[in-house]
Amino acid sequence: MSDKIVGILGKRGGQLGRMLVASASLLNVKVVILDVGENAPAKQILAPIKPELAHVDGSFTDAQKILELAKKVDILTVEIEHVDADVLDEVAQARKVQVHPSPSTIRLIQDKYNQKKHLQKAGIAITEFFEIPEPTPEAIHAAIDKLGLPLMVKSRTLAYDGRGNFPLRHISQIEEALAALKDRPLYAEKWVNFEREIAVMVVRTVKGAVASYPAVETVHMDNICLLTFAPLRSSDPATIANAQSLAESAILTFEGAGIFGVELFQLPDGILYVNEIAPRPHNSGHYTIEACETSQYENHLRAILNLPLGSTSLKAPSSVMLNLIGGSSDMSQLTSFVGNALSVPGAAIHMYGKSECRKGRKMGHLTIVGDSDAQVNDRLRPLLSQLPNPMTHEEIRKYAPHPPGSGALHDHPNPLVGVIMGSDSDLGVMIPAAKVLDRFDIPYELTIVSAHRTPDRMVQYARSAAARGLRVIIAGAGGAAHLPGMVAAMTALPVIGVPVKGSSLDGVDSLHSIVQMPRGIPVATVAINNSMNAGLLAVRVLSAGIPRLIEAMENFLREQEKEVLGKVSKLQGLGWGDYEKQRTGSS
Amino acid sequence: MSDKIVGILGKRGGQLGRMLVASASLLNVKVVILDVGENAPAKQILAPIKPELAHVDGSFTDAQKILELAKKVDILTVEIEHVDADVLDEVAQARKVQVHPSPSTIRLIQDKYNQKKHLQKAGIAITEFFEIPEPTPEAIHAAIDKLGLPLMVKSRTLAYDGRGNFPLRHISQIEEALAALKDRPLYAEKWVNFEREIAVMVVRTVKGAVASYPAVETVHMDNICLLTFAPLRSSDPATIANAQSLAESAILTFEGAGIFGVELFQLPDGILYVNEIAPRPHNSGHYTIEACETSQYENHLRAILNLPLGSTSLKAPSSVMLNLIGGSSDMSQLTSFVGNALSVPGAAIHMYGKSECRKGRKMGHLTIVGDSDAQVNDRLRPLLSQLPNPMTHEEIRKYAPHPPGSGALHDHPNPLVGVIMGSDSDLGVMIPAAKVLDRFDIPYELTIVSAHRTPDRMVQYARSAAARGLRVIIAGAGGAAHLPGMVAAMTALPVIGVPVKGSSLDGVDSLHSIVQMPRGIPVATVAINNSMNAGLLAVRVLSAGIPRLIEAMENFLREQEKEVLGKVSKLQGLGWGDYEKQRTGSS
Repeated sequence: MSDKIVGILGKRGGQLGRMLVASASLLNVKVVILDVGENAPAKQILAPIKPELAHVDGSFTDAQKILELAKKVDILTVEIEHVDADVLDEVAQARKVQVHPSPSTIRLIQDKYNQKKHLQKAGIAITEFFEIPEPTPEAIHAAIDKLGLPLMVKSRTLAYDGRGNFPLRHISQIEEALAALKDRPLYAEKWVNFEREIAVMVVRTVKGAVASYPAVETVHMDNICLLTFAPLRSSDPATIANAQSLAESAILTFEGAGIFGVELFQLPDGILYVNEIAPRPHNSGHYTIEACETSQYENHLRAILNLPLGSTSLKAPSSVMLNLIGGSSDMSQLTSFVGNALSVPGAAIHMYGKSECRKGRKMGHLTIVGDSDAQVNDRLRPLLSQLPNPMTHEEIRKYAPHPPGSGALHDHPNPLVGVIMGSDSDLGVMIPAAKVLDRFDIPYELTIVSAHRTPDRMVQYARSAAARGLRVIIAGAGGAAHLPGMVAAMTALPVIGVPVKGSSLDGVDSLHSIVQMPRGIPVATVAINNSMNAGLLAVRVLSAGIPRLIEAMENFLREQEKEVLGKVSKLQGLGWGDYEKQRTGSS
Repeated sequence: MSDKIVGILGKRGGQLGRMLVASASLLNVKVVILDVGENAPAKQILAPIKPELAHVDGSFTDAQKILELAKKVDILTVEIEHVDADVLDEVAQARKVQVHPSPSTIRLIQDKYNQKKHLQKAGIAITEFFEIPEPTPEAIHAAIDKLGLPLMVKSRTLAYDGRGNFPLRHISQIEEALAALKDRPLYAEKWVNFEREIAVMVVRTVKGAVASYPAVETVHMDNICLLTFAPLRSSDPATIANAQSLAESAILTFEGAGIFGVELFQLPDGILYVNEIAPRPHNSGHYTIEACETSQYENHLRAILNLPLGSTSLKAPSSVMLNLIGGSSDMSQLTSFVGNALSVPGAAIHMYGKSECRKGRKMGHLTIVGDSDAQVNDRLRPLLSQLPNPMTHEEIRKYAPHPPGSGALHDHPNPLVGVIMGSDSDLGVMIPAAKVLDRFDIPYELTIVSAHRTPDRMVQYARSAAARGLRVIIAGAGGAAHLPGMVAAMTALPVIGVPVKGSSLDGVDSLHSIVQMPRGIPVATVAINNSMNAGLLAVRVLSAGIPRLIEAMENFLREQEKEVLGKVSKLQGLGWGDYEKQRTGSS
């Protein structure tokens, strides 16, 4: 462990410092905060145990206060990058106090244009950008000539949560853009029609090694991050690895230790670009507190204290982080929202203790964990319409889509089971599997995938299944029944095969085609035409990840037993003659 | 949410209050602490944001200080039961401040003899006990006459962590016992040769409804809780439900809201007794912070604030809590221990910020979560020998048993897969399954269970499998192969059937016996004699709960592909004539 004292340059009333402090308390790491006032969120949960550890009252922009903080600590770090890098340089060069991340990194990152130039030079995939040397219409015209319209005009410095960005759609808006961005140093970025936004937290050690957290999907509303979903789902199984690799490459180019947030764009064709980098804990990493083995906050501390990094692995099968953003100066909206959120299982609430609520201010967040995307979405959905800025129905349908509902025979948006069959003529045989999954409330999709007639579709289906979040595939096929085995050859998931009885050979052809797989590729084969058992087997398989299904299956077995015992009584009561008459419907 | 202010009567330097405060901060619930000194663990992480919320400096035994605290808050609660119940009664009766749990409950529980009498009267299963009206040899002799030797002589009050207990093994120790327990009011308990200790946290609402957390196994060393394992494993599938039901029944008999810790004895025949009850957060509930959807601390706050209770469900498949207990006044032992613990994935460290270390003092704890008992034990094991009071090899073998090691063909102590076969003649066919599980580092056990020759053993095996922690069963059988199907009928787990080829019918008899199961009970059937595929299917099934297995299986599939592609090259290089000569070994 470490007896070094950490100083945090706090953003006025920031939550990242507060969460860093909570992590530090668990490890008994001593921390001193620089922030304005005595009741900054981080200071509320850290009472100095001796006078030397008293917090500093002042702004992160005040050079004197930074020096005052530096005198009290061994390591300086930041919860915001818009600090005075020169003062931090001065502190670092005196060599009494380490500064993480390094002042040069902070300086580089705080000017977004320089950040882009640096990444470009290092060969990191980024979108095209162009200098705007003077904030003049001419310079913007030059950028439009180079990058086209629409164009993203951005302030180089002091920009976050979308502040400092102007989306320029038509040349008539140039004056408006210049007015909105005032006299700030500017640059332009080529407009990106991204499919979605992805973020990766990367932690960098003092020695320069990096480790990344699982990639997440982020959803922004009004330029502020509202949701992050972890893990990322994708129909391209390489997306997660590519995103993490790109983010790690980017962070390897910087100096100094600590956690970095890397925001990425994913284009419709799957291409990834680095959008922006934050040299500090990041909103898109809040989910790591509940969903990963070590949080971004603890790993930031471990990194800057030169302690071994903690595991960045997920420990929750599925999670979503929802920011609680003020709708107005009225705190009661959020208070009543949180009152409702208390009833959501798996929801961990984090209120930041900010003294004033404001429209657009991050007042807290909550992370919901669950055993599947479907469960997490079910838990999230009712909250989205209760936010101070409620989501529209359309937005809710997009980000927490409704399940098809009982009896509505459509695919679930977050399926755990894929039910596929070689031909629509197999549908009648396969429906009992779907009915079983409905009965156990297991999300599934059902479709036709023919090994012989749609081989490319089969490859695509099998290869993407795990990355899309499926955990089991049920495949029905008849005759030379290749579908289950071929799918099993192209996925790591368990595949359950249902031999469908054809017009000849009584289904034995299908059975042997499905069950007699070569060593190396198993298919879990059930009885001929018995897709009900395939559904029940899928439920049993899922119990390895969803323990409540053990109990559900035990109940099912008991009900089944009861049903037969009912027949025992009836047989005893009626006698076998009448019983058989009733059973066969003969009079 | 609630704007009520909570006051906590802190035990001198206690950790429970600190963890309550951490939970309160997340919900923005205002708290004031009564404890001695300015730097009590709870006060360290709670800086009053206004003068009215200033903490109180004093002892939980000081009536004046309790009244001073009561004036500042809306709800009073405790982190220790040895408080002045009369003062709390006075506070409660003034009706300005609610006290939870109710003073009457605290009074009842703090006298262990009265606690027993209360539970006995309510019909709760407890061990026999006997009054010792005076601390005299005669009274103890009377207790021995009634309850026999050995006898547990206990102090009625102010006893915890084994303090105040004297195990009397022989009448010659009577004077020693009286001296050890001084002039305290005493009582005697019948000696219990328990198999193990179990604990259940129960939360009780203001309206008197109760909800329990999953039962855990607790391990005590030197009378102090050292380890808790969650969830509890048992060869009796009813143990967990019975333990929770008994604990809930016990807590239903008390008044007032909040969390209660219920300690139970389990006897070798499975019988459960309530041992002791704590009317507050409890050491055996620390694991709930990382392993449950809502922690015991947050649910205590929710209960006393009359907010909806949070879910008590497990969110980690397996977890263990390890107390960090001082070995001496030297804190550096623990500091270096924690330094090592930082490298254990899934370990969450909680240091309490206590100013002084002492032998036997709880200085912190850590909770390790993992995807299986085997993984949690692997993570725990190296730490046990590094404790300030290191565990002996024998103790480690008991509480974190070693896996059999590669090549050592014995059962794993925490198996996820059960490999069973109808006869030892099937062993040769089933070994490839074991080898696959070894290759993927999956813990398993392997044994003989014959449906026809050991039907009772089969019932016992199948019925207990899920409760023992198994997640998949692989069953091999030949001929009239009933084992897989009969096991599947008596467990909710997925059962993989391996048809073993007999001396006639080429294995088709076994295949059809295993695969052609009736609707309701599926067996995942693989090819005849292909237990390798059964092993691989088990790995795929486990990936539903252990996502890393997806990647491991993908690697396996790639290696398999590479192997065949190697043969492609070789065939091209040699030509088919030489290739076939090499392949068949002909010259």
